[in-house]
Parts: sequence; C-alpha cells; structure tokens
Amino acid sequence: LNLRSILVLSVGMLLLGGCASESTESQVEAPGLPQELADGAARLRDAALASDEAYATLAELCDLHGHRLSGSDRLENAIDWIADRMRGYGLQNVRKEEVLVPVWIRGEESLRLIEPASHHIAMLGLGGSVGTPPGGIRAEVLRVTSFDDLTALDPTAARGKIVLFDVPYTGYGSTVQYRSRGASAAAERGAVAALVRSVGLDGMRTPHTGALRYDEAVPRIPGAAIAFEDANLMARSLERGDRVVAELAMGASSAPDRISHNVLAEVVGREKPEEIVVIGGHIDSWDVGQGAQDDGVGCILAVEAARLMHALDLHPRRTVRVVLWTNEENGLRGGRAYRDLHAAELDQHVAAIESDSGNGRAQGFRFDLRPAAVDAEEVTPELEAARIRGLEKLRELLVTLSPVGADSVFVAGSGADISPIADEGVPALGVHHDTSEYFRIHHTRADTFDRIDPADLRANVAAMAVLAWSLAEFEGSLRP
Amino acid sequence: LNLRSILVLSVGMLLLGGCASESTESQVEAPGLPQELADGAARLRDAALASDEAYATLAELCDLHGHRLSGSDRLENAIDWIADRMRGYGLQNVRKEEVLVPVWIRGEESLRLIEPASHHIAMLGLGGSVGTPPGGIRAEVLRVTSFDDLTALDPTAARGKIVLFDVPYTGYGSTVQYRSRGASAAAERGAVAALVRSVGLDGMRTPHTGALRYDEAVPRIPGAAIAFEDANLMARSLERGDRVVAELAMGASSAPDRISHNVLAEVVGREKPEEIVVIGGHIDSWDVGQGAQDDGVGCILAVEAARLMHALDLHPRRTVRVVLWTNEENGLRGGRAYRDLHAAELDQHVAAIESDSGNGRAQGFRFDLRPAAVDAEEVTPELEAARIRGLEKLRELLVTLSPVGADSVFVAGSGADISPIADEGVPALGVHHDTSEYFRIHHTRADTFDRIDPADLRANVAAMAVLAWSLAEFEGSLRP
Repeated sequence: LNLRSILVLSVGMLLLGGCASESTESQVEAPGLPQELADGAARLRDAALASDEAYATLAELCDLHGHRLSGSDRLENAIDWIADRMRGYGLQNVRKEEVLVPVWIRGEESLRLIEPASHHIAMLGLGGSVGTPPGGIRAEVLRVTSFDDLTALDPTAARGKIVLFDVPYTGYGSTVQYRSRGASAAAERGAVAALVRSVGLDGMRTPHTGALRYDEAVPRIPGAAIAFEDANLMARSLERGDRVVAELAMGASSAPDRISHNVLAEVVGREKPEEIVVIGGHIDSWDVGQGAQDDGVGCILAVEAARLMHALDLHPRRTVRVVLWTNEENGLRGGRAYRDLHAAELDQHVAAIESDSGNGRAQGFRFDLRPAAVDAEEVTPELEAARIRGLEKLRELLVTLSPVGADSVFVAGSGADISPIADEGVPALGVHHDTSEYFRIHHTRADTFDRIDPADLRANVAAMAVLAWSLAEFEGSLRP
Repeated sequence: LNLRSILVLSVGMLLLGGCASESTESQVEAPGLPQELADGAARLRDAALASDEAYATLAELCDLHGHRLSGSDRLENAIDWIADRMRGYGLQNVRKEEVLVPVWIRGEESLRLIEPASHHIAMLGLGGSVGTPPGGIRAEVLRVTSFDDLTALDPTAARGKIVLFDVPYTGYGSTVQYRSRGASAAAERGAVAALVRSVGLDGMRTPHTGALRYDEAVPRIPGAAIAFEDANLMARSLERGDRVVAELAMGASSAPDRISHNVLAEVVGREKPEEIVVIGGHIDSWDVGQGAQDDGVGCILAVEAARLMHALDLHPRRTVRVVLWTNEENGLRGGRAYRDLHAAELDQHVAAIESDSGNGRAQGFRFDLRPAAVDAEEVTPELEAARIRGLEKLRELLVTLSPVGADSVFVAGSGADISPIADEGVPALGVHHDTSEYFRIHHTRADTFDRIDPADLRANVAAMAVLAWSLAEFEGSLRP
C-alpha cells in the first residue's frame, strides 16, 4: 500500500504540476482570500479529486474491521489498525485516549408470526435492549401508529401484549423517537415487548437497528425493529380482522463497562500549534453490516484530509487534529470524554468538523455556534451577530469548493460527536451530505462497502480537506 | 369478501354500462373479429381494470399461505385454500390431481468468513442441496469467474476447497447454469462445497436461492448462494492477497417423495366443452419470502380471469381450464403430471397460457409451437407456416389489449409448467411481463406482497382474461 500511495501521490503531483496556472487562477476565484490559503485549498482539492487512497483505505477498514460495535474486541482492533495506518502516513502525535463504554451483546434472536399464519419475520433487536426469557415471549400483537394512538386506547389494552409501533417513516428526526422510546412507552402500559417499524426508507426485508433508551421508571422490556414488509404483513392481517400472535426470542445481554478509545492524530500547526481544528467521525458502528457509511466514511475523510496535507507538505498556521470517536452509536461517551479530557484547551479550539451522514455527495457544511456556558442557554445579540459573521466567513472560505458543488452553508445540525464541545462554545461544522439514499441502508446489514461511490468519496475528501485547511490557515475566528 | 366482490363487480358493471358505446367501438377497434368475441374481450378487459379482487386475493394467498415449497404442509394448505376460493367464486369442476413431489428441508444454515476477518455472510442454501456434516465445513475459498476459469486451473487447485462461482449477472438465462451446475462442477475437481454469487440483480444483502442439479457421476457437495456484497468482499480480500477461509454449516436434508397436487377449475365451454384452453401459474414457491411474484401472481391472474368470465356471465365456446401446478421450482413434476394424466385429451388442447415472470406490466405474450411427436424434433415447413399464421392470429386477437399496452407477440419462452404439453404440440403462450425489476427479488426473502403494484396487477389480469377468452371463443386453431 505504501508503494501504491506513493504512485497515487506522484500522479496527483504531476496533475498539480500541470495545474499551476489553475492554482494562480484560484486567486481570481477567491478574491477575498490570502494567496497561501487559497493555493493550499486548491492543491488539497485537486489532490483529493485525483486520489483513490481514501477508497482503498475504507475498503480495508470495512473488510478487515467492519462492523465495530463499541465494547467489542473488533472495535479495539480497528482502532489499533487505524492508529497504525495514521502513523504510517507520517501524521504526528498519534495516540489513543481511554473511554469507558457500555457493553451490549446481541446474542441469538428471532421473531416468528404464529397467527394468523406462520412466518419468519425480518428483525433486529435494538441496541441496549434486554433479552427475552430463554423460551421467548409469545403474545398477541397490538398495532399503534403513534404514541397518541397508544395513549388513546383503554389503559389495559396493551397489557400482556407485544406493541407494534407501525409509524410511517417521515424522516429520521421525526420518526426515530419510536425506536428510542417505544419500548418504555409500551412497558408503561403493561406490554411485554415492543416492535418498531424500521426507521428508514423501504429496503428489501432489511430491518434497521439503533439504540433504545429505557425510562428508569418502568420495567425494561425487549425492543426490536422489523422490516417494513413485516410491519405491513401484520397491519394487513389485523385489517382483515385476524388476531396476530408473534413469538420473540432475544438473547441480548449487557456486561460491565469496558475501556475503549478515541484515537487522535495531528498535523501540527506552524505558527499557532496550540490552536486546534478538530476533524473526524466515529470509529464505532452498529454490529451489523460493515459500518461503511456509518461512519467509516467520516473517519476516512478526516484521516485522508490530514494525510493529504502532510503528503503535499502543507503546514497550516494552526494544528489540524483528527479525532475518531468511540461509542457514538450507543452512548456518545467518546464525544463526552473528549470534551472532558480536553476541557483546558477547548477555548483554543477554532472549530470542529464532523462527517456522519454517509457518503452522499457533499453539498456544503452545517454550522452550529452555541452559547459557551452551560447555564447561558440564551442566544445573545452578540452570539447572533457572530453566527451571521461565521456563515459569511464560511461562504468566503468555501469558494474553492464551488467546482465540487460543496460550497453551501446551512444552519445547525453539525454532528453528534462534536455536540458536547459545541455546547462549550466550540464552533461546530458537519459535512452536509446528500442523504436521499442514506437512510435506506443506515443501521442495516446493507451498510457495506459496495454502496460507496468512489467519485462521491473523492469529492467528500476534497470538502473535508479544504475546510480543515482553511479554518486552520485563516487568521480570524468564528467565535463571538 | 363475497360482499366486497359484489360491490367491486357492481362498480365494474356500472362502468361497463357507461362504456356500452365503447364496446360497440371495439368492433371498429377489432375489425377482423366476430362481434361476440370482441365484445366479451372488451367487457373482460374493462372489468379487470376496474376490480381489486385480484389484489385482495393475492394478499391473502401471501399472508396466509406464503411461502409454499412443494413437499410442505404449507403448500397443501394453500392448495386447499385456493380450491375453496375457486368453488366460492362459482367455478366448475374444481378438483385436485395427485402429483408425487420431492421433499427438501432447508434446516438451519449459516456461513461465516473466518479469514481474513470474521464476517457473517448473507447466504441461502440451494434447493436440493445436501447438508454439511454436523460441525460444518471449514475450508479455503477458491474464486473463479466461469466454468472455463475453473477448468483452466491446475486439476488439484480446487481439492479440499470451497469454490466460489463469482460470475457477474448478465441475465437469468445466461447465468443460472452456475447455480444449477456449479456444485457438481466444483465436486468434479475435488471441492468440498460450492458457493455462487446470487443469480439476480443487486439487492440489499439478499441472496437468491433456486435449484441445483447434481451430476450423478460425482460426489454430492453442499451448494449455497451468497449476496453480491459478500461475493465482492471475498473478491476484494483475494485481490489484496489475503487468504479467504469460510465456514459453512447447512442442515439441509431430503425426505421420501410425498403426494402434492395440481389444482384445477373450469369455466365449461358452451359449444365445444371438450376443447380446452389451459391458463395458470405454479402454486408452489421457494421457502423464503411469500412467493408473491413467483408465482402467486400467475395463479391469481388465471383464477381471476376465470372468475370474471363467470361473474360477467360470459360463456366461451370452449372450456377455459385453470391449472395451478405444483413443484415448478424443484422438479417440474406438476407440469409433467398434467401432461401424463391428460395425455388422451392433449389433442383437444387449443392452447395453454402461463404467467410466471412476476407482476411487471404485461407487454404481450410469448408464443411457442413445437413439433408434436417426441421423435420429431425437426421444424417442418408446415410447422413454420403454422407459427407464422399463429403469430398473425394472436396479433389480431390481442387488439383489445392495445389500450393496455399488452398486444405484442414475441417468439418462444412461453413457460416452464406448460413446456411438457408444449412438447406434445399444444400451442403454448406465456405472459410477457416487464421483468426489469423482477430478478432483483426473484427467489429472495424480498418476494413479498409489498412489491405488487395494483395497477400493474389489474392490467395483467386484463391481459390473461382477454387472451383466455379469445382463444376459447375464436373458431380457428393455432396448430399446423
């Protein structure tokens, strides 16, 4: 691979050599930007668009270390592997930071329809769920289409039943609450288990897992997602007036917390090394598929952005720090641990950029700027003014990405792993990917390398590299 | 449901009442056709397009009796259910005919990649395969991309290995040989098991099962299909120079043949009841999914065509006989049993029409006319002339379907279940469906009712009903 990297880079450099006049043109493209900043951005963009290193590295991550649930040996192996890879690339200060994470083990699981007819149901237990008793749970299915639908029923209606939340998918943000809170809402009404219509676009008998969260006030009952086809089967049966009975068996269990790691690497700044631009994604994934788009892509974008800077001998004014967080999927403890371990230097964080919404073509970035103090939730006029200045500055900096179509700036929605530091006032940015197909494979067995479009991946690396460089290089601030 | 049928029909009849002038127009539309034939065809077409009875019945078949592998109780229950349904519709001579079918039981099965990394592989054992020894088979994977690729290797190259036929899907007809013959071709070279890249369009970790056929001259080794993503994973690993080792466990077994049934029903002819137009599909399916498109659709098209004739009080000159064959998928014994049991009346079979390629919109029909005697394989000038006359006659008869877009006639490819009687000289027709998406779900867990488009189903019923009526009503012959 090292030989291959060298070859790819050599071709890239030849291309860059041939593009010297284009680099000069970038001054015209980006009139407000200092030449060094604009030149570096253009070189990174062009090198990213000419390299398949990200594609090859992501394939290895997926094939050798996918999937990677936090709490598993598989994840720790992946972390060591990617740390080695970053060392091999010549990145600086490669290190791991300890994070205590929950341990959840899926175990064997199955769901069968018993009435009105015997059917195998395509299911995935929800992360964090308790298991069933060893013999499984056999009960009648009560179908509801919303929380209101459930609470409108007779208070005893769900008692002893398996509640199915058969909620049409209207978008991830609006529908995911049924996956997170469905089990406890059902338990509150005396249900023995909860099923949720998969939170995602229609697949091919592909259930979508994800975390549930138990309300401590009610008993913990097992929760599982079923494919849309299987939810439809139950709905049709009930519509015909048939009783629906299902048998759920889940061997899910939890074990004591164990130590996992965030993994870090740096391109140290040439002028202000203590000022930091964080870039990253989460290295953990769900325990199905390969964690290719969720969030192998985010990790590889950050690693590759830093690799390209180093390989092109670009030394930004500030430090670019790659952070690959652990435990995003079932705890967000990696993001919180980073905040806590780096509390003393958060003031020096110029920005944090995350990618965690697949490999759809980047259209730009989402920008969050929040009140710094925990007790100051109010948005002051000063903060509002800084947000507007920030959006303007970002538009200016992103001009290099207009040929890639990734030069738009959107308000809010930056990313989960960086939200703990965003809450401390760190300007936070998330790559805004085209997600029109992402939620078809999100948290499913079909999140595999096969759906990675190499051209989109190259463009996404360009987007991450250009913004990371620009924020590490520009002299201003996005803060109030 | 009876009430519902009546309502739907009433609406249909109201529509037909309103379309009286259109019926008259059909004379103009179909200048060469007798008025009674053209009127009946137009009435059937319009009633089919106005009714959702087929959609509701197919849903019940899928939800109460899907899947339906021949040799299983599930299939026999489905056969009894659909016989009752046809009696309820008022069809005549509803009966079952015994067919001895093989019994194959999938059992528990799994495939894991062991090297270069541990992965769950999405697989389905192939129908008719032997199982593995109880502990499974662990062996290195040898990947080939064609039979030639395998035979070009050193004769010992496959010895003790699991051979993967990683053949790009270029169409069902051209690729299915690797599923059918791969296991024996691998066994001939000393392999211990065979895997095949799924024969179908790319899905979402959805392997495609189907029958394998053992060559009696070589040992029987287990055969399984894997999803395209998993074949790609193995191919990438080998390309990187990694050894690929897999562990296959299959509990597949065969039991002694048992009695299954073809199920028949008729609309008895008013003038020549002894002359017969057969219409049908196969009632059996693979043991995954719901057998919705393969071939629930074909069965329902035939049942519904007959129901509409009866409900509209249309009495064709000849008998229309619904035949729902058993054991198409893993033996074709239903088609052969029909030929043998009805040998004496095959001369009186005017035509046989099958639908067995999903629910894509019918574009017309495929026409086969073969030499009648087993030892007369030669196509005589007389037969060739009859084929041309037949194609012309069919084009004339299908004019009623031109508003539906189902009026084309294609040469050959009529259908598997009717091929035994086609070989005896019975003119054979297959609904030519749009199959552009069919081979994505064919023989997979995703062949469920959800992918049935109700408008396409109505159009397909119209196609089947119009051609069945026309062939039972016209005075000529498609034979030489």
